[in-house]
Order: sequence, then structure tokens, then C-alpha cells
Amino acid sequence: MNRLINKIRDIPDFPKPGILFKDITPLVKDPATLKLAVHQLMEPFLGSRITAIAGMEARGFIFGSLVAWEMGLPFIPLRKPGKLPYDVQSVSYDLEYGSAALEAHIDAFEADDKVLLIDDLLATGGTARASCELIEKLGAEIVACAFVVELDFLNGREKLENYRVHSLLHF
Amino acid sequence: MNRLINKIRDIPDFPKPGILFKDITPLVKDPATLKLAVHQLMEPFLGSRITAIAGMEARGFIFGSLVAWEMGLPFIPLRKPGKLPYDVQSVSYDLEYGSAALEAHIDAFEADDKVLLIDDLLATGGTARASCELIEKLGAEIVACAFVVELDFLNGREKLENYRVHSLLHF
Repeated sequence: MNRLINKIRDIPDFPKPGILFKDITPLVKDPATLKLAVHQLMEPFLGSRITAIAGMEARGFIFGSLVAWEMGLPFIPLRKPGKLPYDVQSVSYDLEYGSAALEAHIDAFEADDKVLLIDDLLATGGTARASCELIEKLGAEIVACAFVVELDFLNGREKLENYRVHSLLHF
Repeated sequence: MNRLINKIRDIPDFPKPGILFKDITPLVKDPATLKLAVHQLMEPFLGSRITAIAGMEARGFIFGSLVAWEMGLPFIPLRKPGKLPYDVQSVSYDLEYGSAALEAHIDAFEADDKVLLIDDLLATGGTARASCELIEKLGAEIVACAFVVELDFLNGREKLENYRVHSLLHF
């Protein structure tokens, strides 16, 4: 674990005063440690019948596509509104200020897909919860959500109480 | 090549009437074809002294991080403004309407880095050209730019005339 922690950089006061941001760019810059993180993300699910990996724009694209690659599974991008060109399903969710939405193509998943959702960070859980709703709206099943970093004090796990949650690092 | 083309979906009139959008989501959903694409992106550079892979937000994160993974090299994300938490270098560029910018951390590259820039699409070349400028501003050298799809009729290659350009599919 120390090896992973050493590649997460603390940035004070980003994106606003009082927030200590966990910067994952040193991790994706270090191939050996990134390999460790990706393999730890997927390790609990190697025996599961996962059939697809979903990842949220934008940092989730990095970890999600790498987990999908290593598991030999489809990668399904969940995107910010207006980015996907084909017909989409959409889920809105509340942020601290205002709201946001995530979209996926209506044919993104197969009817019996069992999905592992991947992102770099579990914070308040709003984005992850909306992602799960979006995937379920499209007829697929969430097997688990896996994160590199979980900020325990934000209680994001409570928003995911119906799902299995796997995090590599807790702060 | 047919195998790749079959996984690129044409979407008419996106993002606006008259544009035929090349949708890469079927490609990232098909592990075997995605593997072919990633290996073809890197193949011309296996003998080069590439030391880092850069990719642009957001679809470039998928292909860039996979090429970096397969080559065992650092992945450097080039991001939209305000996303990166540490000190950044920035490059602005003109779009058809208005302007955009890309950012990278000031310590993203090492002084002697030789960079392969990866994105899914070469269209007008504005984003790719700005990416090259950003990487050079940070003291690294561009060895080449590689794209899954190049839209020849938009002449993006002219904006990259100082660089080697490698594209898997031409439309």
C-alpha cells in the first residue's frame, strides 16, 4: 500500500480553500505502480462473472480502460452530457452547487451484462451513485464499484449502500 | 483494416447538421479489436526511443493510457482548463467558434522526454497542434502523433507539418 500512497500527491486548497486534493497524476506516470493499482482494482473480481467495465469521464477512462484491457472485457465510457453521438440514456444528480448529468449510449450494455464500475476517487458518492443508476436503467447489473482512493470522511460509501465497494486507499 | 473500420460507427449530423461523426465506442467495447488498434498505434515506434505517452482529455485518455501500458511507459494526461490540481502550463487555441485551452502539470515531463502523442481522432488538428506546443513548452520533444482515425478532408495534418503523423484509418 505504501507504494501506492507514495504516488498520490496531496494538493492543498484545490479546487477551493480547505480541500486537500488527491492528485493521481504521479501514479499514472509510474508504470510499475500503476500496474499494481490496476491489478489491485480487479483482483477481488477475478473469480466473478463480470462481463463489462464502466468508467466515468475523465479520470475513470484511464483506470477503467486499463482494468478492461487486463480482464479482456469491453470498456463502456460514461460521459458528460452532449459528448456521445448516438442515442443516450441520461441520469442527473445533485452537486454541492447545481447539478450534473452522466450519459451512456442506449446500446452500451448487453441485457445480461454484469458490470464493474471503476473510478479513481470515491468522494461524496454522487457521481458513482448516478453511474450505477444509469447502468441499471440500461438493463445491466452492477457487481461492484472499485476506486483507487476513498475519502472516508465524505461518507460516499453510504450512497452506494446497495453495492459492493472496493477501494485501494482510504483517507 | 476492415476489422477496425467495422468497429467505427458513422453517426450523421453530430454534433451538428452535415457532420458525419466517427463513433469509437464500438471499438472500445470490443477487446480483440481494441487490442489490434492499440498495437497498431504503437507499432511504428517500438524501435524509437519514446520515453512518455501523452493523451488528450477525454477519449485520448483511453487510447493513450493503453498505449502507455503496453509500452511500459509513463502516461501524461493533457487536460481541459481547471482540472489539474498542481501548477500548470497552458496553451490556448482557436476553435471554429471561440477558443479552448489545454493544460499539463509543470512537472509532467522530464527534460529529455521523447513523447508520443495519442488521440482517437485527427480532425482540424487544432487540439493536436496545441498539445504539441504544450509538450514542447514543458521542455520535452515530440517524436510523433498517432491517431486511430484521420479525417483527411479537414487537412489536420497540415497543422502538424513539423511532426511525424501516424493514423490507422483515413476518411
